[in-house]
Amino acid sequence: MSEVLKLGKKAKEAAIKLATVSAEVKNSALNTMADALVANADKIIDANKKDLEEGKRRKISKALMDRLFLNKARIEDMAQDLREVAFLKDPVGEIVKGWRLPNELEILQARVPLGVIGLIYEARPNVTVDAAGLCIKSGNVVILRGGSVAINSNLALTKTIADAAIRAGLPENCIQSIASTDRAATTELMKMRSHVDVLIPRGGASLIQSVIENSTIPVIETGVGNCHVYLDRGADLDMAKKIVINAKCQRPGVCNAAETLLIHKSLVEKGFLPEILNELKGKNVEIFGCEVTCSIGSDILKATEEDWKTEYLDFKMAVKVVQSLDEAIAHIQKYGTKHSEAIITEDYSAAKKFTEEVDAAAVYVNASTRFTDGGQYGFGAEIGISTQKLHARGPMGLEALTTTKYIIHGSGQIRS
Amino acid sequence: MSEVLKLGKKAKEAAIKLATVSAEVKNSALNTMADALVANADKIIDANKKDLEEGKRRKISKALMDRLFLNKARIEDMAQDLREVAFLKDPVGEIVKGWRLPNELEILQARVPLGVIGLIYEARPNVTVDAAGLCIKSGNVVILRGGSVAINSNLALTKTIADAAIRAGLPENCIQSIASTDRAATTELMKMRSHVDVLIPRGGASLIQSVIENSTIPVIETGVGNCHVYLDRGADLDMAKKIVINAKCQRPGVCNAAETLLIHKSLVEKGFLPEILNELKGKNVEIFGCEVTCSIGSDILKATEEDWKTEYLDFKMAVKVVQSLDEAIAHIQKYGTKHSEAIITEDYSAAKKFTEEVDAAAVYVNASTRFTDGGQYGFGAEIGISTQKLHARGPMGLEALTTTKYIIHGSGQIRS
Repeated sequence: MSEVLKLGKKAKEAAIKLATVSAEVKNSALNTMADALVANADKIIDANKKDLEEGKRRKISKALMDRLFLNKARIEDMAQDLREVAFLKDPVGEIVKGWRLPNELEILQARVPLGVIGLIYEARPNVTVDAAGLCIKSGNVVILRGGSVAINSNLALTKTIADAAIRAGLPENCIQSIASTDRAATTELMKMRSHVDVLIPRGGASLIQSVIENSTIPVIETGVGNCHVYLDRGADLDMAKKIVINAKCQRPGVCNAAETLLIHKSLVEKGFLPEILNELKGKNVEIFGCEVTCSIGSDILKATEEDWKTEYLDFKMAVKVVQSLDEAIAHIQKYGTKHSEAIITEDYSAAKKFTEEVDAAAVYVNASTRFTDGGQYGFGAEIGISTQKLHARGPMGLEALTTTKYIIHGSGQIRS
Repeated sequence: MSEVLKLGKKAKEAAIKLATVSAEVKNSALNTMADALVANADKIIDANKKDLEEGKRRKISKALMDRLFLNKARIEDMAQDLREVAFLKDPVGEIVKGWRLPNELEILQARVPLGVIGLIYEARPNVTVDAAGLCIKSGNVVILRGGSVAINSNLALTKTIADAAIRAGLPENCIQSIASTDRAATTELMKMRSHVDVLIPRGGASLIQSVIENSTIPVIETGVGNCHVYLDRGADLDMAKKIVINAKCQRPGVCNAAETLLIHKSLVEKGFLPEILNELKGKNVEIFGCEVTCSIGSDILKATEEDWKTEYLDFKMAVKVVQSLDEAIAHIQKYGTKHSEAIITEDYSAAKKFTEEVDAAAVYVNASTRFTDGGQYGFGAEIGISTQKLHARGPMGLEALTTTKYIIHGSGQIRS
């Protein structure tokens, strides 16, 4: 039996037990896990050093090395996150709906854990702890499959928190990491329908694409964001500037950052185009413009078809002048990834049309796209931002890690 | 460009328009579609005759021929179903939740259509009309891919209702059937992520399995049901008999019919086993029993491992004597398909334990499994019964054909 299949079988057994563990025990486990991380920081840092050496050997980028790096402060942060998850409301057991049928059957729709969640992610050790915490809180068993360069860190973290969870009274095997770094193990995980209920890929576009193409297990797709800000004819120009700069520059490397700016021609006629471009250039944003935009300055590169499609995740922005609100919406339908889209306008009908017609997880009027986030929405925790339409759409809190079952109380009813 | 890709592109365009069509226009379209079916009954029956001939040539079973067969009465029934769907509440536009953040952003979670739904089904012309009606009502464009032997019926039905929908004011291409009966067309449909939002297979286990294995589009899996009735130590025996007979015999060919009977040993000690077996035999149910069950009569076949796994969909039932409630639950966890499971008991704690620990879409106390049905649950319509955990679980009404989007109203908020 392969390692992955063994893990799967153990996970399925654990899931049956974990599903009915009380919130009290789960919260106590989260706190014990947090304490164990702090207590074992030295061991974890030793393991992490091996990964950092391997990272150097593989010449991975500085940004990736930084994501891989652990020290005491970062381990304290992970522990703190677990303690905060312990404070959140347990989603399991909620009665979502309940009603009585004419034949006196009583139907309750109760929230229950998904069961076994497979998590496939990149070389970010913090995701190991973060995901395990959210899964445990929502009553789910997790099988973790992190990036190979982080394998020593992940195994050390997993052992630490899994042992702590057992000490606190959780069933064995609730938190498991795949030890093999062989790609075949990932493929096997993605096909193990009988032991895994849901797969969640967390990472860049190519990781997500690979999971979508290969998985036979239902997938919750998280977020590529090619987000737009549209400055309507009726925009408050001061507000427009602030929101564009915030959406593009406040943290350009994340999925809810804006990538393309659409501007109604009437604002161009008012002379607003050089103004906003200067603001962007002042923040070192490189501009890829349409023909009209390019006419403003010789330092503006001509946008290609590829630019309208690209999630730069960088200080780069595509800029296009549109003839109408309809053209703006059509552009978003064509190039957007259905993540977050914003209109800046004081025109009531334009705002209404935009929110109704734009097909995206989050549609904003007069606010930055950067708000699409579980924490910002008040969910307390975030598993990711779903850009698919099934199950959950937009920022996903603990509820997205649950399903429901119908419980029906009868008194001998049969169907006629 | 292939036929399927052409259909996909047209569907995507239509979906943008259909999403904002009012309930009034959609309902009027459903009624116009119903009238058109009745008016074109002769043409549809002519097309159906070709399919019936092809069915004979392929020597398909009597049951399949019956499902394929159309006459005026059946066409009237389809029309009536459409009229009833017109009466249901439109799920689109509902505000599921709404709240205000400390920074005064207002968040609304609004129900919206999924977009383009691909429906893959067997040679049942009535599904063509039924599915199209439910999709239109919920604001979704549909691409239909029915079984090849029903191709003439499906194309005639599709043309009739699609033309009627346009006459009633719906956008073009909201309802399309794939004309090619080539298997490659089905495969292409299952991979067309950029033009299809969700795939729904409706049919037997092998059809569903093929979609799950090949689709890169999110799938709503509908139901294989290996359902159990467990007669607990505390069962009311009269009620137990009625429910077992109903769950097995009232309509054995459907997914919510019971396939295995589990009986607590204490009932056997009371002499109940021959009693219930005689009831079943009186209804011509063939029994596949465990060792104890087999000792009751020589006409009982020994159940194999395969029997515990099988969805008979027939007058056949596996019967097993269990030592405890725990053994019953473990058997269900091992062999069940997470569809519908029932316990018959007057024991409060046993009922509570069973409903908490059994992982299934619907868990019954003292009622027949046959109630797992959108119509019975009061949903008015049913797309199918989901046995997956993502998005929808159990009977799916119109809501299961929708997703949500967040609409956020601001006044210049930026993220700090």
